[in-house]
Amino acid sequence: MKYGIAIFPSKTLQDIANSLRARYDSHYAQIPPHITLKEAFEATDVNALANEIKKITKEIKPFSINVYKYSSFNPVSNTIYMGIQENEELLTLQKKLNSGFFEQELKHQFVPHITVGQDLDDDEFHDVLGRLRMKTINHEEVCDRIQLLYQLDNGSWTVYETFLLGKDY
Amino acid sequence: MKYGIAIFPSKTLQDIANSLRARYDSHYAQIPPHITLKEAFEATDVNALANEIKKITKEIKPFSINVYKYSSFNPVSNTIYMGIQENEELLTLQKKLNSGFFEQELKHQFVPHITVGQDLDDDEFHDVLGRLRMKTINHEEVCDRIQLLYQLDNGSWTVYETFLLGKDY
Repeated sequence: MKYGIAIFPSKTLQDIANSLRARYDSHYAQIPPHITLKEAFEATDVNALANEIKKITKEIKPFSINVYKYSSFNPVSNTIYMGIQENEELLTLQKKLNSGFFEQELKHQFVPHITVGQDLDDDEFHDVLGRLRMKTINHEEVCDRIQLLYQLDNGSWTVYETFLLGKDY
Repeated sequence: MKYGIAIFPSKTLQDIANSLRARYDSHYAQIPPHITLKEAFEATDVNALANEIKKITKEIKPFSINVYKYSSFNPVSNTIYMGIQENEELLTLQKKLNSGFFEQELKHQFVPHITVGQDLDDDEFHDVLGRLRMKTINHEEVCDRIQLLYQLDNGSWTVYETFLLGKDY
């Protein structure tokens, strides 16, 4: 089965992201707005996964998420995203979820973000990105939990379990 | 903010439900297939909610979910669903999540189910239900967790937290 690990931001931030995703993101219906911590990976023993995630999350305290710009992965892809300021906890969390037990080859360097547009044609991409770049965004909130998800046959994702940061199970 | 409490069944059962929902359920994109334990309700203090849910879930052991028929709420509504056999734990869980701290007036008697079709016109409703009623379904699995969700402005739902049954926090 395919699993992934992500942060769901607050309703406020998700609503802002969805107002864009509804028009520009081909994956709009498959998952709520999120920050991917670990890309889709295959696993069979979900209990082992959950146990390993707990070991990691209990060592990481809740941290700030600061959305500070709109940007894109162009020329690698036409994905448009809300950029999130890097911070030590977030980077450590992502690193631990992609090494050791969770070793996974990353296609790209980790750039914390919330996707708001993808699979746009070139004209629309440049148009949307140009308009978003003129907008000011500066949103800060606390992240105190991460989610382990699994993928259904239709491509959508369901939450299997929530893990609270800094919590000793 | 609007919250709800639900069970997400296994991937196997969700995939079966989605093969129908994709065509017949107007809420297909808003939430994965689920068994509603508590209808949408307004709340402000999510920590208080989570604490009260923990008190309830720690007293309930994991239980069997047995999907045994296709049926509908006709004539009350044209909703088509997979019916789930009642059992004591499921009924107790639903009752506790709708009384005391969670007091909520229920529009209908609790009928455990997974919706697979809604907002169909009369002809399609009778056609789909007629075909499904001829199918045999007999699926059993264990439910060991429930999910607290909140609703976004676009009507979709995001998981806030997972609660494991029988777990003492």
